Amino acid sequence: MTGSPQRAAAVADEVLLARAYLNRVVEPASVPLWRFVRAVGPVEAAERVRCQDVPDDVRDVTSARHAGVDPHADLEAAARHGIRLVVPESADWPHFALAALEHAAVARLRTYDVEPERYRRTGEPIPPLALWLRGPLDPSGLAVRAAGIVGSRRSTRYGDTVARRFARELAERDVVVVSGGAFGIDTAAHDGALAAGGETVLVSAGGLDAAYPAQHRVLFGRVAASGLLVSEHAPGASPRRGRFLVRNRLVAAFATGTVVVEAGQRSGTRNTVGHCARLGRPIMVVPGPVDSAESVGCHDLLRDERWAATLVTSAADVLAVVGGLGDLAGDAAGEVVGEVAGTGVAAGGGTAGGSHAAPDRTRARRAGRLRRVLDALDDRSRAVFDSFPSGCAVQPDEVVFASGLTVSEVLRSLPVLELAGLIEQYDGGFRIAP
Amino acid sequence: MTGSPQRAAAVADEVLLARAYLNRVVEPASVPLWRFVRAVGPVEAAERVRCQDVPDDVRDVTSARHAGVDPHADLEAAARHGIRLVVPESADWPHFALAALEHAAVARLRTYDVEPERYRRTGEPIPPLALWLRGPLDPSGLAVRAAGIVGSRRSTRYGDTVARRFARELAERDVVVVSGGAFGIDTAAHDGALAAGGETVLVSAGGLDAAYPAQHRVLFGRVAASGLLVSEHAPGASPRRGRFLVRNRLVAAFATGTVVVEAGQRSGTRNTVGHCARLGRPIMVVPGPVDSAESVGCHDLLRDERWAATLVTSAADVLAVVGGLGDLAGDAAGEVVGEVAGTGVAAGGGTAGGSHAAPDRTRARRAGRLRRVLDALDDRSRAVFDSFPSGCAVQPDEVVFASGLTVSEVLRSLPVLELAGLIEQYDGGFRIAP
Repeated sequence: MTGSPQRAAAVADEVLLARAYLNRVVEPASVPLWRFVRAVGPVEAAERVRCQDVPDDVRDVTSARHAGVDPHADLEAAARHGIRLVVPESADWPHFALAALEHAAVARLRTYDVEPERYRRTGEPIPPLALWLRGPLDPSGLAVRAAGIVGSRRSTRYGDTVARRFARELAERDVVVVSGGAFGIDTAAHDGALAAGGETVLVSAGGLDAAYPAQHRVLFGRVAASGLLVSEHAPGASPRRGRFLVRNRLVAAFATGTVVVEAGQRSGTRNTVGHCARLGRPIMVVPGPVDSAESVGCHDLLRDERWAATLVTSAADVLAVVGGLGDLAGDAAGEVVGEVAGTGVAAGGGTAGGSHAAPDRTRARRAGRLRRVLDALDDRSRAVFDSFPSGCAVQPDEVVFASGLTVSEVLRSLPVLELAGLIEQYDGGFRIAP
Repeated sequence: MTGSPQRAAAVADEVLLARAYLNRVVEPASVPLWRFVRAVGPVEAAERVRCQDVPDDVRDVTSARHAGVDPHADLEAAARHGIRLVVPESADWPHFALAALEHAAVARLRTYDVEPERYRRTGEPIPPLALWLRGPLDPSGLAVRAAGIVGSRRSTRYGDTVARRFARELAERDVVVVSGGAFGIDTAAHDGALAAGGETVLVSAGGLDAAYPAQHRVLFGRVAASGLLVSEHAPGASPRRGRFLVRNRLVAAFATGTVVVEAGQRSGTRNTVGHCARLGRPIMVVPGPVDSAESVGCHDLLRDERWAATLVTSAADVLAVVGGLGDLAGDAAGEVVGEVAGTGVAAGGGTAGGSHAAPDRTRARRAGRLRRVLDALDDRSRAVFDSFPSGCAVQPDEVVFASGLTVSEVLRSLPVLELAGLIEQYDGGFRIAP
């Protein structure tokens, strides 16, 4: 299901403009601003930041840029490059993926009022205020059946081979491959997914009008053609050191679980792993030769029990972790290949045809996935799902009434349905995921 | 401390002859025979087996060979090849190392009377009845600071390099390297220890008059010159498949902990690992490339939580597991190097001089080890040790009286002293280890 312009249009322009402004007035992941937007809503927040009628903590972080941000210009520049803005008010906002960030943020910020100075710097694990996207993949299903594949920029041939193979085999099994578009392991991961004609998400630390690193212009183009480029930064923004670290929380959030393929002793990958741990996302690690400097970090992760990392040696191992409800292993994969073949698109087709083939494949895949998910549900969850009205959000007690089940039965089933991507939280209640 | 002929002579000839006979009348690790010897003692057991005046279960396993074994001939052949027999009655019997087998056997054989047929086959984790030895290393200290290094016979260059480096670095730190003398990882392990001028123990599945495999004649000779060849088989016995598996329990028992460097998917190494687990000996595993068939077994071991295997990437990691009380890491290692240098033997000296240098080095090492162990003891254990009489075994209540400590204090210290190799169980009590 591709992101449709109509959906974006359903969000009021003033909300889009407000969030475009707020997202740029401070570097992403600013705790004071996120709290303020949460408290008063994006439109009022933007207005009050503009005239600096804000609490002290918000003024501290917004005073430098409050008058210099032009969201109209950003949205126009984005449109010229095929980039769209999604916001929490959009139908295709990745609510499911970002719920983990929301929970982590709420838990972590309990002490904010006592010691706010701890949270002034950006980089906390809080949800983004808005996201710039480029590419046909629907972000709302992220984190359901997605594998992060990350690792060293100075990867070895071994690491590249493993990352590419894992990505290719996962993509062939309908798993979205998430990474950061950097040199080394990231590149091998995106390449592998693309080689299989699969879906890949590249979370960039700069504006999506240009590739970073610049040598990755072709890679960014291929991802945009069939998958998704994601960034918190407006077009024209250049990546900086801090932005890479802040970006990593999105890689962790968008993936059901993340695989570290290679990492040196003091690797930046550790930062992504930390985000995974905070978000409760499984961490998987590929071992390597003990005499390779680029596997030192991997072995350290495996040994440190705090990470509870899983040793993985194959795509099948990863699938067992990220496959989730929708995965019925071999049979299901065969079924998907059958479906895809039925659309006339050869599996593993050349990359040149990838951009045309992607929407058809995607549609066939989503349909197959929905059916498999429904088949895999227990009877109670199925009954709860069947009692949902179409098109509007309901409260749990309405579901209890409609389904004839007990409150506790319903409350136990809702997370299952949400995890399966069948329902989503909306407007204080739940609704069938669009 | 080298094995001295006087010690062996202290054991009555009739005991030596009886055990030489019993050890050959059945394949090693025969449960019925071990139980019988335990019940009536070796001399009576040998006499009664000879005339088949034995319980049914013992007759079943001894009837085939009872008249065809000539222990005099075995002992004479052994003497011609510089091979000696040690028995549990010998001062240098590896009591400490084999205590684990004794405990495991007792625990495991509780159900023997109910279903004896389960234990008719050989290969159970029971102690040997006697051991043939060749080489100057004193076996009584085995399992105190010893690392098993085992793995695939079809090792890769990676595995050989790692095994050799680990063995060399461990031997340089006064750790005895134990392995099975096979092709591949075993060879690399022995080689590494020998290259460092260190001590290595080779447990063979055949008689020690010949090398197995035959290509390892030089290796066996080098080990016999400075370390120890060990076998349950009399000279002339050829290795057979079953003997390798039975042999593995001794590798596991002689090592404080065992490192698996490489192992294929269905590796014989699994058998050694199983023995380690049964004996409570730590299992360490070296990871490798996930695309190497010879690391598949290693990764399986690391993933299977039942083994509680530790991922190790360096000799230092192994030392942390097998170093025990006597290890004070860097400082202690430096001290040992100093001691060894003081004897006029250059560390890492050529292998040609190894056989002459070994006894001096060994003596310096043992002295240094004893001092370090005493230094590392807590005050209470030191007081318990100081209250031991020299030369005779005492009961715990005599230690309580002599030390002035409480019963529970003494009982808590005895295992510490035993583990440190300072005392040993003897004659139903404890005595200072010779």
